[in-house]
Amino acid sequence: MKYSSEIEVSGHLIDSMILTKIFDVVMDLGGEFEVLDIKVGKKKKDSSYARLQIQGKDQKHLDKILEHVYRVGATPTVGKQVVLKAAPKDMVMPENFYSTTNNTTQIFLNGKWVNVDGMMMDKCIVVKNGKAMCTPIREVKKGDMIVVGETGVKIIPPERPREGSNVFEFMGSSSSSERPTQHIAKKVAQDIYKTKKENGKIVIVGGPAIVHTGAADSVAELIRLGYIDGVLAGNALAVHDIEYATLGTSLGMNVHDGSLAVKGHRNHMEAINSVFRAGSIANMVRTKKLRKGIMYECVKRKVPFVLAGSIRDDGPLPDVITDTAVAQKKYKEILKDAKMVIMVSTMLHSIATGNMIPANVKVIVVDINQPTVTKLMDRGTWQALGIVTDVGAFLPLVAQEIKKLGR
Amino acid sequence: MKYSSEIEVSGHLIDSMILTKIFDVVMDLGGEFEVLDIKVGKKKKDSSYARLQIQGKDQKHLDKILEHVYRVGATPTVGKQVVLKAAPKDMVMPENFYSTTNNTTQIFLNGKWVNVDGMMMDKCIVVKNGKAMCTPIREVKKGDMIVVGETGVKIIPPERPREGSNVFEFMGSSSSSERPTQHIAKKVAQDIYKTKKENGKIVIVGGPAIVHTGAADSVAELIRLGYIDGVLAGNALAVHDIEYATLGTSLGMNVHDGSLAVKGHRNHMEAINSVFRAGSIANMVRTKKLRKGIMYECVKRKVPFVLAGSIRDDGPLPDVITDTAVAQKKYKEILKDAKMVIMVSTMLHSIATGNMIPANVKVIVVDINQPTVTKLMDRGTWQALGIVTDVGAFLPLVAQEIKKLGR
Amino acid sequence: MKYSSEIEVSGHLIDSMILTKIFDVVMDLGGEFEVLDIKVGKKKKDSSYARLQIQGKDQKHLDKILEHVYRVGATPTVGKQVVLKAAPKDMVMPENFYSTTNNTTQIFLNGKWVNVDGMMMDKCIVVKNGKAMCTPIREVKKGDMIVVGETGVKIIPPERPREGSNVFEFMGSSSSSERPTQHIAKKVAQDIYKTKKENGKIVIVGGPAIVHTGAADSVAELIRLGYIDGVLAGNALAVHDIEYATLGTSLGMNVHDGSLAVKGHRNHMEAINSVFRAGSIANMVRTKKLRKGIMYECVKRKVPFVLAGSIRDDGPLPDVITDTAVAQKKYKEILKDAKMVIMVSTMLHSIATGNMIPANVKVIVVDINQPTVTKLMDRGTWQALGIVTDVGAFLPLVAQEIKKLGR
Amino acid sequence: MKYSSEIEVSGHLIDSMILTKIFDVVMDLGGEFEVLDIKVGKKKKDSSYARLQIQGKDQKHLDKILEHVYRVGATPTVGKQVVLKAAPKDMVMPENFYSTTNNTTQIFLNGKWVNVDGMMMDKCIVVKNGKAMCTPIREVKKGDMIVVGETGVKIIPPERPREGSNVFEFMGSSSSSERPTQHIAKKVAQDIYKTKKENGKIVIVGGPAIVHTGAADSVAELIRLGYIDGVLAGNALAVHDIEYATLGTSLGMNVHDGSLAVKGHRNHMEAINSVFRAGSIANMVRTKKLRKGIMYECVKRKVPFVLAGSIRDDGPLPDVITDTAVAQKKYKEILKDAKMVIMVSTMLHSIATGNMIPANVKVIVVDINQPTVTKLMDRGTWQALGIVTDVGAFLPLVAQEIKKLGR
Repeated sequence: MKYSSEIEVSGHLIDSMILTKIFDVVMDLGGEFEVLDIKVGKKKKDSSYARLQIQGKDQKHLDKILEHVYRVGATPTVGKQVVLKAAPKDMVMPENFYSTTNNTTQIFLNGKWVNVDGMMMDKCIVVKNGKAMCTPIREVKKGDMIVVGETGVKIIPPERPREGSNVFEFMGSSSSSERPTQHIAKKVAQDIYKTKKENGKIVIVGGPAIVHTGAADSVAELIRLGYIDGVLAGNALAVHDIEYATLGTSLGMNVHDGSLAVKGHRNHMEAINSVFRAGSIANMVRTKKLRKGIMYECVKRKVPFVLAGSIRDDGPLPDVITDTAVAQKKYKEILKDAKMVIMVSTMLHSIATGNMIPANVKVIVVDINQPTVTKLMDRGTWQALGIVTDVGAFLPLVAQEIKKLGR
Repeated sequence: MKYSSEIEVSGHLIDSMILTKIFDVVMDLGGEFEVLDIKVGKKKKDSSYARLQIQGKDQKHLDKILEHVYRVGATPTVGKQVVLKAAPKDMVMPENFYSTTNNTTQIFLNGKWVNVDGMMMDKCIVVKNGKAMCTPIREVKKGDMIVVGETGVKIIPPERPREGSNVFEFMGSSSSSERPTQHIAKKVAQDIYKTKKENGKIVIVGGPAIVHTGAADSVAELIRLGYIDGVLAGNALAVHDIEYATLGTSLGMNVHDGSLAVKGHRNHMEAINSVFRAGSIANMVRTKKLRKGIMYECVKRKVPFVLAGSIRDDGPLPDVITDTAVAQKKYKEILKDAKMVIMVSTMLHSIATGNMIPANVKVIVVDINQPTVTKLMDRGTWQALGIVTDVGAFLPLVAQEIKKLGR
Repeated sequence: MKYSSEIEVSGHLIDSMILTKIFDVVMDLGGEFEVLDIKVGKKKKDSSYARLQIQGKDQKHLDKILEHVYRVGATPTVGKQVVLKAAPKDMVMPENFYSTTNNTTQIFLNGKWVNVDGMMMDKCIVVKNGKAMCTPIREVKKGDMIVVGETGVKIIPPERPREGSNVFEFMGSSSSSERPTQHIAKKVAQDIYKTKKENGKIVIVGGPAIVHTGAADSVAELIRLGYIDGVLAGNALAVHDIEYATLGTSLGMNVHDGSLAVKGHRNHMEAINSVFRAGSIANMVRTKKLRKGIMYECVKRKVPFVLAGSIRDDGPLPDVITDTAVAQKKYKEILKDAKMVIMVSTMLHSIATGNMIPANVKVIVVDINQPTVTKLMDRGTWQALGIVTDVGAFLPLVAQEIKKLGR
Repeated sequence: MKYSSEIEVSGHLIDSMILTKIFDVVMDLGGEFEVLDIKVGKKKKDSSYARLQIQGKDQKHLDKILEHVYRVGATPTVGKQVVLKAAPKDMVMPENFYSTTNNTTQIFLNGKWVNVDGMMMDKCIVVKNGKAMCTPIREVKKGDMIVVGETGVKIIPPERPREGSNVFEFMGSSSSSERPTQHIAKKVAQDIYKTKKENGKIVIVGGPAIVHTGAADSVAELIRLGYIDGVLAGNALAVHDIEYATLGTSLGMNVHDGSLAVKGHRNHMEAINSVFRAGSIANMVRTKKLRKGIMYECVKRKVPFVLAGSIRDDGPLPDVITDTAVAQKKYKEILKDAKMVIMVSTMLHSIATGNMIPANVKVIVVDINQPTVTKLMDRGTWQALGIVTDVGAFLPLVAQEIKKLGR
């Protein structure tokens, strides 16, 4: 038992599969384990506890196993001080820096467990004045004390939601298109309604297909009714929304009767030009050039929006933040303390947002293309609920249901 | 000009791209052509005419080019008698038999052009008593006189639809998911309504996702209201429809509130057993064991349905025709003279049906998976209008719109 | 504790998530549980054991929970005789018949646990002379004694594979397209090679895209080299294989240089006619009309094949079993005792095959369309390993690797 | 004939369907036409000519039809001076500005037709010193003279490629996955080889799936062998390429044997940190920290690359241009005079690039997801050849073939 170490773990070990994951890791890496002690919660609300001896072939092997095991939520039975090392330069992390997950994380600092603030995945942890902050590489300053290795870092793995019959529980983790669409729309509506009743912040992340498929009115209505607290998008959503709001077309086709608009091909550019002429979207609203739609409702209801620039933008609009590093910061401000994020028909902004939020934020992804949904989950936003449906038919159903609930 | 031949062609040569296709074929095959005469219709309703000299490198090359050119709609300037040859055995076609397309086809028989009846693609043409019949290989009898080669065979290529603002014209040939869904639903509803007003026969081809996604009520309603004249499906649609109608579940989940049904996993088999117990679906209706749903409405309204067996069937139900050769004949009977075929969420039955209908039948394909739609068109049913959407949201919209129109 | 019952369960409770599933079921159904006893295997090979008290709101509720819990692998602590009831008619199962899963299943009969033979999902269990047989509804005879309810039925849930570095372990359960393709091909080749070394039966289930995408030579080679023990397909695979083998084309295009074949459009029908002329595929081989390809190798190597008819068949070939109920029986014969099933580019035959095999058969599904892979798993063949790739590039890689291994 | 106007058009009217498109437009918009004169080229190389009278219901209707007809390539029989108007402000185009297509375009200026330089779609045309420049809105300066209306603007519609057996001709316009993959790889290789032989510039646009699927070595080799003249990508391709080159993993999995790397989860961030430590990718190469891969070959062979920032970036690397407006300019510089653009597994950068190139640049799009390919074409890059395949298997085949050709 030379190369062995004792770990412990508590929580809903069985229900949330934490123990399974620990067994997995040890076996996958060719290690051995012995269960020294286990107490399974007798009733469903009770927490469980396990103590295990982990054994490796040599010290390096053991360390490797332990690092993986810690990531799943286990901790050494003896609390060990986190190890810190100074950043050698601005925007450079020290060797062996700890790379974060999006789970709630604590570090063992001066004899007690300290929460790390602002959890996001794939960042480092900076410790300053007894506080720990999840920090992106570009914000690292020379001399910042940064957590290295896995010692003294504890992850609190999320528990599976069991709070009642919400849509997450109903759907399980799958993202099949073979579900009763109208019912799912109802469930999503209930979840939005309930989250808002409890004053939870709801952010929508959306792509231009919202407009193409004819769902812009529904999203505008959700904003007008006060259900949405932030809109994260790119240039395209705003341009198409404004084209639709001012010229009635999307990609040059009249949305309401499907006929080709006169000179419809240029409406897209006409919409862009009209914003440049006004100077900004807010100015268009102020001067009554823009009188409806998603962007209009944002301005009117003072719902903050961030339009992130991308390489494929036409224009882009003056409101677009073309520096993506700046746009990321603005996105994060909007996402702070969000309880629910609804991602609609945009892989780019959805994965971006997924990278910025902790794992305990509810995420709903709606897209007609199954691989888009799958890819988001593969990228680490595994808590997301994927709904494979036609946005143009689904969002109007959701809006309808919410209005019924709101009466 | 040794290896050359004169051909002619008339119709909407420009509008329907017939001349383009002829040029294409000749150039693709390395031949030469000379336009001897061309008269383009002056006004849009006028027909055009062209006479061309086609030239090949040798007789074989010329024949090859001519065969392709004839397929596109051209004919030799001098009408030549079709060549017939006897089938050597039952179910064996003679060498070099003419393999049909799904376009309107004529043969030059005894000095005049004779229509071929029952056009379908990939069959042969049997001539009997001055009549020509499109005939599947399994129905060929020893001694049947069968068209060989391409001589004396003329194809009338379909003209592009220009009859007003129907959904086919509106959508063009593409099958993108980025269209205003609610508007497309309205257009499809109008097309169904109009076809029915003109006493056109409408057949629906459907898969079980109709039930899973919660659209069964809408399809049942369309049948009840008299819009559907035939239902072509497999075992699964019927089983799931009956599971839903009798037990309220689809795949064991209560469709109306999404909860798990007690012992839901066996409802599927329970539904199958209930039909076996009654002896048939019609008996279930008669004995009031089945009181709603797609199959119920078919029985009640005397709308014929054919359930074709497949290798993946559970059961299958006693009503299922397990011999697929027999099922094909029954499908064809239902499809005879259909004006419109609506294909929903089933690649198998959709391609099957596509193989059985001439190119002038309107086809609408609805599926959430774009490759399914593309594949059907690649298989020769190029006239199909593909709608990439969520069936569970789309069909209820269509049903709603039709009800409005029917008032 | 009025409505409560004691259950027990053993096996790899943690590793295979059995305990998690039991907790899930009880909580999802609104029940309560108490862990009376738990012994977690100390080492990774050790089995675990748990005894729980399950509690419901009333007897019906409790029964419902118990039924679900039994399905996951638990049994009552007190063994209870299975309940049998006679089938009232041919092809009719008694009320409340037990509907099977594809897991290993035992029934408690006359004081001991008896294995059910021929496990497949969604069938019933017939007991005769102390033996238990998994039986499809169409084979049920009047008077057959059939298991009803869940009492006395035990499921042995499958353990997660941990036998070394096979491709299943490597890939996890996901089916993303973002994997190193060449490496996966190598792993699949190793698995096939190893299975065959151990005399495991390997069956391939394939669609016509094998031929269209240019992978027919690779499959033919695997058969020639003795790696394949059975081929399950439909009419289309055989027709396209024979078109390719005799005329060099697939869908009329020369596979080797991509040019359009002369009269290529009719090659498909020509191939069908050539089989009818010979009388059968085997006759074509005997008379040397067919000299290469998948079907040729099957005939030559006496590898059995079954071609199941479907409603979309052209022809179909004389070798096709047009009665799908008969074809299902033939499929099952081929699948008996298979260790590995490789499913390539055919949803229809893959789901059919998935329904016929127990959960402990290794299944590899290769398709370019992710929803196809997902759908198979959703239909109950959850043990399948999904590989989203281009068959025309992937299978040649697999064949290459196997040849290297076989040297 | 009050509201009528005479137009003319010449070129390959039939072969390139220009006449069909003119007829389409007039009929779709409810106008009338009369063919006044038509001369169809007698031989395939000959150009055709047509003169038509177009008639509308009123002047507005006629103007609308004419505008559409001009877009398809027709011109008024009487040349009319283009109309210019000054930009009212920086970044604001005048009312009714002409919005460009990606086709070759000329304006009638001072009595002669002048080519517009730098054609891209959805821009305006600025005229200065007798020259015409296609100009994005953000580069418009107050007072710039900008083309308004459609008068005096002529589009030269592209002719269909008939230059021999290249891959574009072979594949037609479709993007099905049912093609012989190995053969397509060969054709693509021949096209790349031939383009390079003729000193044509080839640019590759790539996403990170190149690395995940194991195709990075192949792309690196194409660069090393001198076939690639520019690499357009985002942060992710570079990060994954460097992770793979320095640590052997992609997403933490060892690419060569598929095993999990020790602490693989942090390799992604480790790669980013290593670039920050070196200061730039070029510095990493100079200091021998980076010794292979796509980015390495770019630096070594002085092949320019542009990494455009996006909202989803981790890091992003110091080499990434985070301002997307700046990145767009850099992209355009690289794309100038490109003959062929190969787009691999990235919708974002592919659509971006599609927006920046004229319609006569050859475009090949390779992706496993069909809707991605379709979407690019729908966005206006209709000349693209879509190949639906697995990049990880396809690119190695292409690289292999090119090496054979290069010997």
